[in-house]
Amino acid sequence: MTTTGVSIRRLRDHVGASVELAGWLQAKRSSGKIGFLQVRDGSGVVQAVASKKELPEADWAEVERATQESTVRLTGTVTADPRSPSGVEIQLASFRVEFLTQDFPITPKEHGTAFLMEKRHLWMRSSRQRAALRIRSEVEQGIHDFFHSHDYVRIDSPILTPAACEGTSTLFQTDYFGDSAFLSQSGQLYLEPAISAFGKVYCFGPTFRAEKSKTRRHLMEFWMVEPEVAFLEFEGLCALAEEFVSALVARVLDRCSEELKVLERDIAPLERVVGPFPRITYTEAIERLRAQGNPIEWGDDFGADEETLISEAFDRPVMITRYPAAFKAFYMQPAPEDPRLVLALDMIAPEGYGEIVGGSQRIHDHDLLLERIRAHDLPIEAFQWYLDVRKYGSCPHAGFGMGLERFVAWMGRLEHLRETIPYPRMLYKIYP
Amino acid sequence: MTTTGVSIRRLRDHVGASVELAGWLQAKRSSGKIGFLQVRDGSGVVQAVASKKELPEADWAEVERATQESTVRLTGTVTADPRSPSGVEIQLASFRVEFLTQDFPITPKEHGTAFLMEKRHLWMRSSRQRAALRIRSEVEQGIHDFFHSHDYVRIDSPILTPAACEGTSTLFQTDYFGDSAFLSQSGQLYLEPAISAFGKVYCFGPTFRAEKSKTRRHLMEFWMVEPEVAFLEFEGLCALAEEFVSALVARVLDRCSEELKVLERDIAPLERVVGPFPRITYTEAIERLRAQGNPIEWGDDFGADEETLISEAFDRPVMITRYPAAFKAFYMQPAPEDPRLVLALDMIAPEGYGEIVGGSQRIHDHDLLLERIRAHDLPIEAFQWYLDVRKYGSCPHAGFGMGLERFVAWMGRLEHLRETIPYPRMLYKIYP
Repeated sequence: MTTTGVSIRRLRDHVGASVELAGWLQAKRSSGKIGFLQVRDGSGVVQAVASKKELPEADWAEVERATQESTVRLTGTVTADPRSPSGVEIQLASFRVEFLTQDFPITPKEHGTAFLMEKRHLWMRSSRQRAALRIRSEVEQGIHDFFHSHDYVRIDSPILTPAACEGTSTLFQTDYFGDSAFLSQSGQLYLEPAISAFGKVYCFGPTFRAEKSKTRRHLMEFWMVEPEVAFLEFEGLCALAEEFVSALVARVLDRCSEELKVLERDIAPLERVVGPFPRITYTEAIERLRAQGNPIEWGDDFGADEETLISEAFDRPVMITRYPAAFKAFYMQPAPEDPRLVLALDMIAPEGYGEIVGGSQRIHDHDLLLERIRAHDLPIEAFQWYLDVRKYGSCPHAGFGMGLERFVAWMGRLEHLRETIPYPRMLYKIYP
Repeated sequence: MTTTGVSIRRLRDHVGASVELAGWLQAKRSSGKIGFLQVRDGSGVVQAVASKKELPEADWAEVERATQESTVRLTGTVTADPRSPSGVEIQLASFRVEFLTQDFPITPKEHGTAFLMEKRHLWMRSSRQRAALRIRSEVEQGIHDFFHSHDYVRIDSPILTPAACEGTSTLFQTDYFGDSAFLSQSGQLYLEPAISAFGKVYCFGPTFRAEKSKTRRHLMEFWMVEPEVAFLEFEGLCALAEEFVSALVARVLDRCSEELKVLERDIAPLERVVGPFPRITYTEAIERLRAQGNPIEWGDDFGADEETLISEAFDRPVMITRYPAAFKAFYMQPAPEDPRLVLALDMIAPEGYGEIVGGSQRIHDHDLLLERIRAHDLPIEAFQWYLDVRKYGSCPHAGFGMGLERFVAWMGRLEHLRETIPYPRMLYKIYP
């Protein structure tokens, strides 16, 4: 009896059985008498061994006819094979081509990135791309599981928003029945009112930045997770960020070991990502940089180079706290010991992956927030509902944001964010 | 010893203990000697009983001073109370107002909907709104758990897209560095290429429809879940939709019983939502309608009235299959027995909630799809990548879409979609 509906990922549980599979031929080697077929079904890849002697003649002809990325259907016996990454291979009993593919554009030879990006919808089938996107998918489930298991309520913040949080120069704009609307850059402002209803909330969705930049760290459309918690103060925020990042890294190590192997990711640096993470203040970070000869001055923001320099001193993510208010967002709570500082937290990933988490305790005093909105020349009327959070049942609260693509890039040690998202949106690049 | 960090939702596990809570005063009754305080912490609501005799004088004064939606902190002993919805109440030992709220705009009296929508950020705190949004959050986790546990890979389809699937009149448009981009109405086209990489994929994200309609069933921004599966044919698609909807309904019954009570939702109709669901063809549905005196003719699409009429004959969701190609999407696979029909599926919810699932088997023949793209006057160049799915490793495949808000409205028997999403976007309505 032949078992149908088994996925390649689960073939290990069927050693000795006869199975039927449908999928795509990824690669083929043949000696004239024996063929080795790499067959992918989406869940994984398995080697199927075709023997001219043992296959019906018509089936062997199909083995010879099959081309890269042809759709194939086969039956065969699962045998254990410790040398194979999947742990098994299949001895073919039957084989047929269901769809003959001609001239699949992406061959084992090297292709330029521009070409691969034009063919993103086909490039996804290659093993590195599959590994990166599977890690992404697993991290996303990890995000939801983390917050759901900690009793957070998911609050989807809107994408179409009336007011800009910080200027409109990097916003995508659209007509909204005669008004202007902007694509959201953050859900935070919309989460804050929800904490008074639900205590602990989070959002996870796409965010947008119309920045005329073309670097490996820029996407116009990216996904962000943002928790926001009532009565959470700055120490608790740092602990939450540490617990969250540690849990996600552990999940990737636990569930994506095959994908990390495909990406040739050295996992030792990831295994060190357990709390407590080192914490330094902004002021200490400035002192460290200056001691290393960097010309930065107190009051300057860090660029990518400074982030890398700081993070190199540590073997796990480093949390930098208490930044100058001057270059941080208007809603951040002043530090009690020094009003020039705010209770902001940036977490810098190791291995040069830069800022992965940015958060703060928020101002919960109505009049102070109003003063800050005025000082930043923001339109008070548009922020009236946001001020209401401080008018009706105000409480200390805090939250952070983490960009999914940066986190995934770090996990896979990927060079460019474009490999961490199925359909990257970059400067002048919106196809497919 | 007083336990801190306990949520009201979990107070049942602390009967007899002394606990500390922070939250908001939702309502208060007082006899002059005894006060009954409804306190909410976001996880739930508990009644705290204040006795003038037993509280310190200053604390009793705070009880008297506390107003609706003031931020409060209290300690007290948890006692079992079978009459209370939470199963417990708290005998206060201390009480203080941390933030005194003045004139919270939403009082127990009736307010008009326009007013409540203007105050959506505060309206969320009321018990019906909290119940609806908690059901939404639980359904979302249910969606992710269903697909993750069935080995699907999540593929986030892009929001910014270059080409319109079906005309541009209902699309939000934005400038993309000199080009036009449109906000996505469906992720399906982007999922189809991914099935050849991953076999089983799904997306879940916001979708947009710029329709000048102002009905209880319209939102400009809503969330949709869409699975797409390689080698899945029409029968399998119907089974998948049935399994998915049954699993989500069971999850809501299992995990949202308190919320359903708050909404006074009769759960008997939901308990009947177990497979197999009745299936009728479009042609049978037309015959049924005509037999009931409805003037519809074969070839007409169903409106909301017809959907309700059809669904009234059944006590669970009904699946209508095999529609005329003429009014369905260009990519649907023709029925083998009659080329005028396509292998399309609509699932109609009971109780008048209309279409909740729409899906189809997709055309997998390249030349037929090309012909349909031409017949629909769609720009072939913009669909070249989509045609590629049929050029390289084509296979039969199918998928469906389900709108989250409609599903949640059905679960809660809510009148209007605006109560199923934290910040509804409607005609001329984008604030807050």
